[in-house]
Amino acid sequence: MMIIMRPGAPKEQIDAVIAEIERQNLSSHPIFGVEQTIIGAVGDGHYVAQEVFEALPGVLSVQRISQPYKLASRQFHEQDSVFQFNGFSVGANELPIIAGPCSIESREQILGIAQAVKEAGANALRGGVFKPRTSPYAFQGLGQEGLEYMAEARELTGLPIVVEVMAVSQIKMMEKYVDVFQIGARNMQNFNLLRAIGETRTPVLFKRGMSATIEEMLMASEYILCGGNTQVILCERGIRTFETATRNTTDINAIPVLKKLTHLPVIIDPSHSTGDSGYVSAIAKAGVAAGADGVIVEVHHDPARAFSDGKQSLTPEVFAKMVKQVKAVAEAVDRTLVPQHERV
Amino acid sequence: MMIIMRPGAPKEQIDAVIAEIERQNLSSHPIFGVEQTIIGAVGDGHYVAQEVFEALPGVLSVQRISQPYKLASRQFHEQDSVFQFNGFSVGANELPIIAGPCSIESREQILGIAQAVKEAGANALRGGVFKPRTSPYAFQGLGQEGLEYMAEARELTGLPIVVEVMAVSQIKMMEKYVDVFQIGARNMQNFNLLRAIGETRTPVLFKRGMSATIEEMLMASEYILCGGNTQVILCERGIRTFETATRNTTDINAIPVLKKLTHLPVIIDPSHSTGDSGYVSAIAKAGVAAGADGVIVEVHHDPARAFSDGKQSLTPEVFAKMVKQVKAVAEAVDRTLVPQHERV
Amino acid sequence: MMIIMRPGAPKEQIDAVIAEIERQNLSSHPIFGVEQTIIGAVGDGHYVAQEVFEALPGVLSVQRISQPYKLASRQFHEQDSVFQFNGFSVGANELPIIAGPCSIESREQILGIAQAVKEAGANALRGGVFKPRTSPYAFQGLGQEGLEYMAEARELTGLPIVVEVMAVSQIKMMEKYVDVFQIGARNMQNFNLLRAIGETRTPVLFKRGMSATIEEMLMASEYILCGGNTQVILCERGIRTFETATRNTTDINAIPVLKKLTHLPVIIDPSHSTGDSGYVSAIAKAGVAAGADGVIVEVHHDPARAFSDGKQSLTPEVFAKMVKQVKAVAEAVDRTLVPQHERV
Amino acid sequence: MMIIMRPGAPKEQIDAVIAEIERQNLSSHPIFGVEQTIIGAVGDGHYVAQEVFEALPGVLSVQRISQPYKLASRQFHEQDSVFQFNGFSVGANELPIIAGPCSIESREQILGIAQAVKEAGANALRGGVFKPRTSPYAFQGLGQEGLEYMAEARELTGLPIVVEVMAVSQIKMMEKYVDVFQIGARNMQNFNLLRAIGETRTPVLFKRGMSATIEEMLMASEYILCGGNTQVILCERGIRTFETATRNTTDINAIPVLKKLTHLPVIIDPSHSTGDSGYVSAIAKAGVAAGADGVIVEVHHDPARAFSDGKQSLTPEVFAKMVKQVKAVAEAVDRTLVPQHERV
Repeated sequence: MMIIMRPGAPKEQIDAVIAEIERQNLSSHPIFGVEQTIIGAVGDGHYVAQEVFEALPGVLSVQRISQPYKLASRQFHEQDSVFQFNGFSVGANELPIIAGPCSIESREQILGIAQAVKEAGANALRGGVFKPRTSPYAFQGLGQEGLEYMAEARELTGLPIVVEVMAVSQIKMMEKYVDVFQIGARNMQNFNLLRAIGETRTPVLFKRGMSATIEEMLMASEYILCGGNTQVILCERGIRTFETATRNTTDINAIPVLKKLTHLPVIIDPSHSTGDSGYVSAIAKAGVAAGADGVIVEVHHDPARAFSDGKQSLTPEVFAKMVKQVKAVAEAVDRTLVPQHERV
Repeated sequence: MMIIMRPGAPKEQIDAVIAEIERQNLSSHPIFGVEQTIIGAVGDGHYVAQEVFEALPGVLSVQRISQPYKLASRQFHEQDSVFQFNGFSVGANELPIIAGPCSIESREQILGIAQAVKEAGANALRGGVFKPRTSPYAFQGLGQEGLEYMAEARELTGLPIVVEVMAVSQIKMMEKYVDVFQIGARNMQNFNLLRAIGETRTPVLFKRGMSATIEEMLMASEYILCGGNTQVILCERGIRTFETATRNTTDINAIPVLKKLTHLPVIIDPSHSTGDSGYVSAIAKAGVAAGADGVIVEVHHDPARAFSDGKQSLTPEVFAKMVKQVKAVAEAVDRTLVPQHERV
Repeated sequence: MMIIMRPGAPKEQIDAVIAEIERQNLSSHPIFGVEQTIIGAVGDGHYVAQEVFEALPGVLSVQRISQPYKLASRQFHEQDSVFQFNGFSVGANELPIIAGPCSIESREQILGIAQAVKEAGANALRGGVFKPRTSPYAFQGLGQEGLEYMAEARELTGLPIVVEVMAVSQIKMMEKYVDVFQIGARNMQNFNLLRAIGETRTPVLFKRGMSATIEEMLMASEYILCGGNTQVILCERGIRTFETATRNTTDINAIPVLKKLTHLPVIIDPSHSTGDSGYVSAIAKAGVAAGADGVIVEVHHDPARAFSDGKQSLTPEVFAKMVKQVKAVAEAVDRTLVPQHERV
Repeated sequence: MMIIMRPGAPKEQIDAVIAEIERQNLSSHPIFGVEQTIIGAVGDGHYVAQEVFEALPGVLSVQRISQPYKLASRQFHEQDSVFQFNGFSVGANELPIIAGPCSIESREQILGIAQAVKEAGANALRGGVFKPRTSPYAFQGLGQEGLEYMAEARELTGLPIVVEVMAVSQIKMMEKYVDVFQIGARNMQNFNLLRAIGETRTPVLFKRGMSATIEEMLMASEYILCGGNTQVILCERGIRTFETATRNTTDINAIPVLKKLTHLPVIIDPSHSTGDSGYVSAIAKAGVAAGADGVIVEVHHDPARAFSDGKQSLTPEVFAKMVKQVKAVAEAVDRTLVPQHERV
């Protein structure tokens, strides 16, 4: 940590900063500049909050040098983390495709889509049963009934199921059904939920908040990791910017940045990051070209009648084409897709 | 709602949109343009989601005309809402000042600050006992113990207390203590929490999410209102932008925009919206000049030793000066502050 | 400047950084941390670009300590700069109001508005003759003819005139007419134009770019100042964010931040920063409450027929009310408006 | 255009809007809704500014239906535009790579880099001689001397040269040297410059402004196109967002969005869109996977000693690897690179 003093800060303020550095079990290294003094704080600062120094009198600003997260950091875990699922891995050379509807609407709907996406090359099935909707007057999901249908779809197809959890109170019940908990963008900093999920041993698909920085995303993942749940898959799903031509702006830079900073797998969600089915395939390919470890995409048998997110959902036919195209791009970057129908 | 068709959309697509409009109990009014057809959907569309139309084949975009919220809208509730507290109102001509530390750190701390802010002119006391921290390694709050101290501070000073609630599971316990629930920026779209708070009858201080639009904030408030809890106080606390000179960017425009769109009271939080105690007074004055119905501000007896948010906390002395300045500005815009020491 | 090395950077990379620091006539102060080495570079670094170090092998990042501007900095010019005009000052205790139409549309229009805004309390007249329009098919301004009318309006009312300059080739001609050059938001980083304006001795009203940081604005002002033109008035006119309820987001924080960082006067343009005449008065008051040194506002005798910016233009009647309200707020913060009709 | 009236707007306001619609040679189609009236304006509205209606009394908002640009629109020019250069095309199936240093620093530097990038597979040479620098104290470019060196590099290698133009006064001189004018991000809305470039017949590489929407970029390109200069190549180079982990945020969505809206070629600049040489290859590949028609990238023989942008410059060796990888991705999406050494 570097503590930058205001120009002209008196000696007693500098001394107070040095005392605080030592109280934090760090060693202090002041540099007396022309206009300003800067004090280096050396030691293991990962768990020292920079605000400890920011409010001290005479401090202009504090510059963190070490990352404010540790378990997620590649610095402390050099090798890529690879998580095993039924029939495939995430984080390895072969990329999985996760597909399914935004919402579970009925038994017929999910069983039909599950078979269609399996045929087209999906390796896991996604589907929401509790829906975080901007308006309280919109469809809010089928709840536990939807989970029953998802489980049946897994039975039928062999595809593991990924379902969003929205509240601590849902965890216990959902745990019996789901293979992967999804934490949605709006809950990326719902720390109570993160802590509780960290206590489970169910893998997590962890979506970036729509205005979260990459660093905040990694810090938030630390809430899950420090509970002992190490299977966290990060997901770039677009950020909010001034551009309104698309629902969100895919932060494609985040893919190589995350691959550098963390050992956790990183996948891309082009459905939410564009909000328009016409752009999903292009961005799925871009994500894989940039180094993503997988793709999650919304597929609906009849997007025009979907209860939610119809505009950004692919039909199974378009999805099947997308899978072929993504496979070609994966091979161009020396990877490939998880082979179809390999699961038991 | 206006449904804008793609150029060249065939008749059957137009007919399908018209059929859907009628299925929603709205009446359809097509306009056949040179390049495109536009179809007006007339009727009570407040509760019709625009996505119902967005995914229909041939639809380019959907333009909502009526607001996507109703209970919060001034259109349906012309008069300003005014909520009564012990000794003051919110939403009326006299503006309250809410002050206190970011976190309750100890009994001595909160009792001392409570008396100091009362002396300086505060009308209510704020203080956190569950803290949403970006890092899991930072101080997370005293929990129920902190609530006991807050209650004692209320006893001592007569100031009503405002405390952030972070999870559904905390509501029952907290309800016994708090006068006002605060919903923090990170939870503005934690819809489960909003619904549960909507079931209570405790007033709510509802903070804007850091990347939420004004419309999303009003839609989210509808989750609380439609449960029957009508006492929602909106709070502008800064949004996230590209500017890094301040922690957030105060969206001062939001004050007059909200006052126009909604009957709910709107207050400003200059501590979070600037992140720097050096700018708090200027922005508190700006908020009141722009039409805010009150101010909430962080005060700490020793900001340099605060467990959190020390950088943006005022000392009681600076706070007392701020109150005087805010009072002068309030009077310049034909309002005033709640008189001090008026409460029973 | 602090140069932060990558973890594990070898000695030769550290030595190369130290050599470069010395080549820049700065002295080097390495701190050998647990994971990383940090090297302080001490001396007058205002004119040393940080990119000199950023590309050196082994450098993780560079943290600037001294500000990257000097002439604009309050650190080197503690007293507020005050500029004298005919009948008033900018930067002093009495705040001027600058008003007028977006575009000069005709002789009658500008003479009429000039008299109306003078009556209502304006101290200077604004009006565009070259218009930067998003679309090439929109009205582009009257050019020199418009300047003739502006000069006549000045004759008639005694109000100094403020006109936007858009190109180096316009400077010579415009210099004969205008009292203040305006540099518009789109030209804030048109460095050729800034340099050329820096060569003149005509005061400048310098608008913040819509996505410029405060630091970039001050660095850009340095282009004018270092040419010897010291009369630069900064203007906050709103930034681009994700919020679409208003045309721009007024960065009200920028007012106190700029007042702290620079000695140059800072005024607010609530017409552009909101884009809606219904919000202009509220934000004008907020700007003054936050410490602005003046207000510039668009006024049109018939906004519904304005060639440009009609939506955000005040009528003279509403403007007159705004002036009275702004005066009350100015007095609440221990300032006042320039008295009317004081000019010769 | 749809004109949305305020709830309760009286008949005379509606009539005034209808009169204005007819004055603009459009036909009016009012829809009388429950709360509000909406008036459709039908006809060729491409060149009608929506602000004509926005300021009329009683108007709540105006929704444009037709695009506010025409020459750039795919609606009026369905086929992809393809521009021919010496030895390659832009906009066709074979993608060109443009490479070179940020700044021309010396004759030796540019001749060396030109040969190196040609060897590695570049099809055109970029290099700046007038540099738009954030600070007036940074290196500002060699000017005409640099152009002489660029011309010599072209002679030597056969590569066409791309050079940024910053001012109208530079056009005449530069025209003799350059094959392609580059318009930089900061000048995307320097309308005087755009108009003047529109008068030339030299192809243009037109960069998106860092906070410009896609629609604004297309409207600005219209300034060039309507002068008769039809050879405009659009370039996505990153936008400004809240994320600070990279210099800009690559708006990868803009690639398929632009390809849908316009017939003009679209290339990607991963050097500026990331600001970090470690991420350039990943984003170059992503851009091509998303449908870009080419790549422009900064290459320097000694990034650590570059006068500008060293941090984001590739060495010729890394560039050569990037070209191979981009070629593989291009082939995966059924395109390829322009063959090397094909030019005369």
